[in-house]
Amino acid sequence: MAVAITQVVDIDPTLERLGALLGDRITTSAAVCERHGRDESYHEGAPPQAVVYPQSTEEVAEIVSICAAAKVPMIPYGTGTSLEGHVAALAGGVCIDMMQMNQIMRVNAEDLDVVVQPGVTRKELNNYLRDTGLFFPMDPGADASVGGMTATRASGTNAVRYGTMREAVIALTVVLADGRIIKTGRRARKSAAGYDLTRLFVGSEGTLGVITEITLRVYGIPEAISSAVCTFDTLAGAVDTVIMTIQMGVPVARIELLDELQIDAVNKYSDLSLTVAPTLFLEFHGSEASVAEQAQTVGEIAAGEGGKDFAWTTNTEERNKLWQARHDAAYANKAARPGAQLWATDVCVPISRLAECILETRRDIDESNLFAPIVGHVGDGNFHLSLVIDPRDADELARAEALNERLVARALAMEGTCTGEHGIGCGKLQFLHDELGDAVDVMRAVKKALDPYNLMNPGKIVSL
Amino acid sequence: MAVAITQVVDIDPTLERLGALLGDRITTSAAVCERHGRDESYHEGAPPQAVVYPQSTEEVAEIVSICAAAKVPMIPYGTGTSLEGHVAALAGGVCIDMMQMNQIMRVNAEDLDVVVQPGVTRKELNNYLRDTGLFFPMDPGADASVGGMTATRASGTNAVRYGTMREAVIALTVVLADGRIIKTGRRARKSAAGYDLTRLFVGSEGTLGVITEITLRVYGIPEAISSAVCTFDTLAGAVDTVIMTIQMGVPVARIELLDELQIDAVNKYSDLSLTVAPTLFLEFHGSEASVAEQAQTVGEIAAGEGGKDFAWTTNTEERNKLWQARHDAAYANKAARPGAQLWATDVCVPISRLAECILETRRDIDESNLFAPIVGHVGDGNFHLSLVIDPRDADELARAEALNERLVARALAMEGTCTGEHGIGCGKLQFLHDELGDAVDVMRAVKKALDPYNLMNPGKIVSL
Repeated sequence: MAVAITQVVDIDPTLERLGALLGDRITTSAAVCERHGRDESYHEGAPPQAVVYPQSTEEVAEIVSICAAAKVPMIPYGTGTSLEGHVAALAGGVCIDMMQMNQIMRVNAEDLDVVVQPGVTRKELNNYLRDTGLFFPMDPGADASVGGMTATRASGTNAVRYGTMREAVIALTVVLADGRIIKTGRRARKSAAGYDLTRLFVGSEGTLGVITEITLRVYGIPEAISSAVCTFDTLAGAVDTVIMTIQMGVPVARIELLDELQIDAVNKYSDLSLTVAPTLFLEFHGSEASVAEQAQTVGEIAAGEGGKDFAWTTNTEERNKLWQARHDAAYANKAARPGAQLWATDVCVPISRLAECILETRRDIDESNLFAPIVGHVGDGNFHLSLVIDPRDADELARAEALNERLVARALAMEGTCTGEHGIGCGKLQFLHDELGDAVDVMRAVKKALDPYNLMNPGKIVSL
Repeated sequence: MAVAITQVVDIDPTLERLGALLGDRITTSAAVCERHGRDESYHEGAPPQAVVYPQSTEEVAEIVSICAAAKVPMIPYGTGTSLEGHVAALAGGVCIDMMQMNQIMRVNAEDLDVVVQPGVTRKELNNYLRDTGLFFPMDPGADASVGGMTATRASGTNAVRYGTMREAVIALTVVLADGRIIKTGRRARKSAAGYDLTRLFVGSEGTLGVITEITLRVYGIPEAISSAVCTFDTLAGAVDTVIMTIQMGVPVARIELLDELQIDAVNKYSDLSLTVAPTLFLEFHGSEASVAEQAQTVGEIAAGEGGKDFAWTTNTEERNKLWQARHDAAYANKAARPGAQLWATDVCVPISRLAECILETRRDIDESNLFAPIVGHVGDGNFHLSLVIDPRDADELARAEALNERLVARALAMEGTCTGEHGIGCGKLQFLHDELGDAVDVMRAVKKALDPYNLMNPGKIVSL
């Protein structure tokens, strides 16, 4: 998977210029650089040569201009919680840590949108919004930055109802690879004004420019919210319940699958006592009547598929505990094996193929003798194996690689994708090619057009 | 508005090669070329030098390869119902009429998606789907082709609930400007696999390639559908009802405004007897209980804003008549002034600015002494003036141009867009620049990267 990119030889003059601009908001500390070069995954890190901390779009533009003039690579950085080696400085260069740009600039409550800087995290945004009666539904497991979520086209548990960052982002301010500042759109809800640059930058993983401002859709907090938990004798029963729920058009806000391994890990990590069995976590949003109607419908579907103890609650505390446990699932798995690293797979398939895909994969895991709980946003057809491996164990790593390759091949054969929400990074370049073939050449052409010297997060998404 | 593009001098060898490929599916008939060079708007047409009728993706690829080899421009064509001069062959060349590629290739009912060729119209698709219990919600006024709707990022009355073609398209097959065939995505509901090429081609107006296959989201026909009509003493009352409905999060499926001029025209054209006053047409989708709840909520809001005679019905025949009248609004206006041409404006603003924008515009129309009913998808903040003008009357044309310029400037000042759903074509190049500034340079860079010889529908969206 290694990408051959030449390191910059003499970066010192560039660092001097950046220092003159930023004062003490630049560092070459080995520890800081090391930390900024790796994410939460098993991927090997690669430290940048310096880390800078801009505080405005204009400063980002100046940083980019300085680096571009010397052909120094740049890697935008948020919370470092990505999972495909996105932040590794494969060619060295300067890491642009966006976390000091963490202002919520405008809340347009009447228009159900907000304008934020990229360093705001999803939880910070929701804490800020609470008093306004609004919420922002995107929720990857980590408390990621909005900038990072935009750059990786992230989603999470609410995507089945509210869509992904693709739908959540209304407009962006972006600093291009040569330092120019553009706005990709206005605040109107829809527009047919030329190429959809907003969507081009959503999911571009820092390879086309640096996102410095994000206009986001938000939603009114629903009148009623209820959560439900339902356990099943078989994985098949749980997955078939999901499929029928989606096909019947029940507007579930969340419908998450956790297999028995995952429930066991979650019980231990989050101090819960859930029945250790394949389980669905659900959430319903709407009016009081609508929430009750939805829960009843899904309860009936589940009962027909061997679901047991379908229990629902509108108690906020119980609800929050449940979903925090769900969000901590990956950390729970990591904790189950101290010292090991996380490898989260991320396929997504058409829902009609979901049962087949999950059940074949479960058999494959069992035969591979690896610890890999299954957890996922199954309403979208997206699920993760949360592999916990010792990357120094060559045999284990090889078995994990082989398992993942078979999983991706299986998903592609079912017209699915190698990544539902984690992105390509440097971990999935070959899979991207397997999935989209010559379309990758079009991506490469776009990359060359917007970043001809391959300075923006080089080695991610496409190799040049 | 004219774009200076040099016509191809000797196209005959290319037409010979195309003739050898297509037999009688090529014509240079002046009447056919004339018809293929103009749309439904006031924009002057420009006929292509020939029209070809491919029947497969592979044939399109061969046509494009032949034209590209001789640097002959190509203009993809659907139903010719666009509104910004999209199909005008400004540099001559070959019109690729896609209407013989009209197969519905797959209906994946379990996955709520379909795969269609671009020549299928929205009504054909819905007629085909009816027995499956599914429907496709996008509905511009015309019975447009799915290919054309994709190319212009169209929407219509259901966008407030179901989104636009941006959300409706899951994946595309595209023939690039050099004849290569790519697929932009798979059938999974979400994907983070590289740059969002699907969204790049949605709304690209034929300037980046020819769309030859479209995978679309469809929806289960709701358990219950009801329509409502409500008249208001004032335009302000109607618009404020819309704003409050959206802000309260009522999941209306349609909420359309027609001013008194539009109601008068619709009454005459569609043989209705609606009260001549500012009016909202609404539609609710959901369970029986949910539809009743929504209608009640909106009825109460309307009553508070001076709404009268809020009448709702679940009768399918009445409902269809109402919406057919709405879709015929533009034709009704055209019929009100025989021999005149339609000029449909298309701004879209944040909903908090909608009342101000519409009321200022209404005053401006009155002062301009032009016939311009207001009609629109107000739930999205999008509304049209349906100007009916005699383009040979220089004074009238100048007044219409000035009115439109003020309207766009007003919308942009309110953080809106010059086009909610009609696109840029050759009619709004300057407005696109006013709206997005340097971002247009990025569009130009993308265009040059994918179509370096400016052969795909030249002169639309960006000038090179």
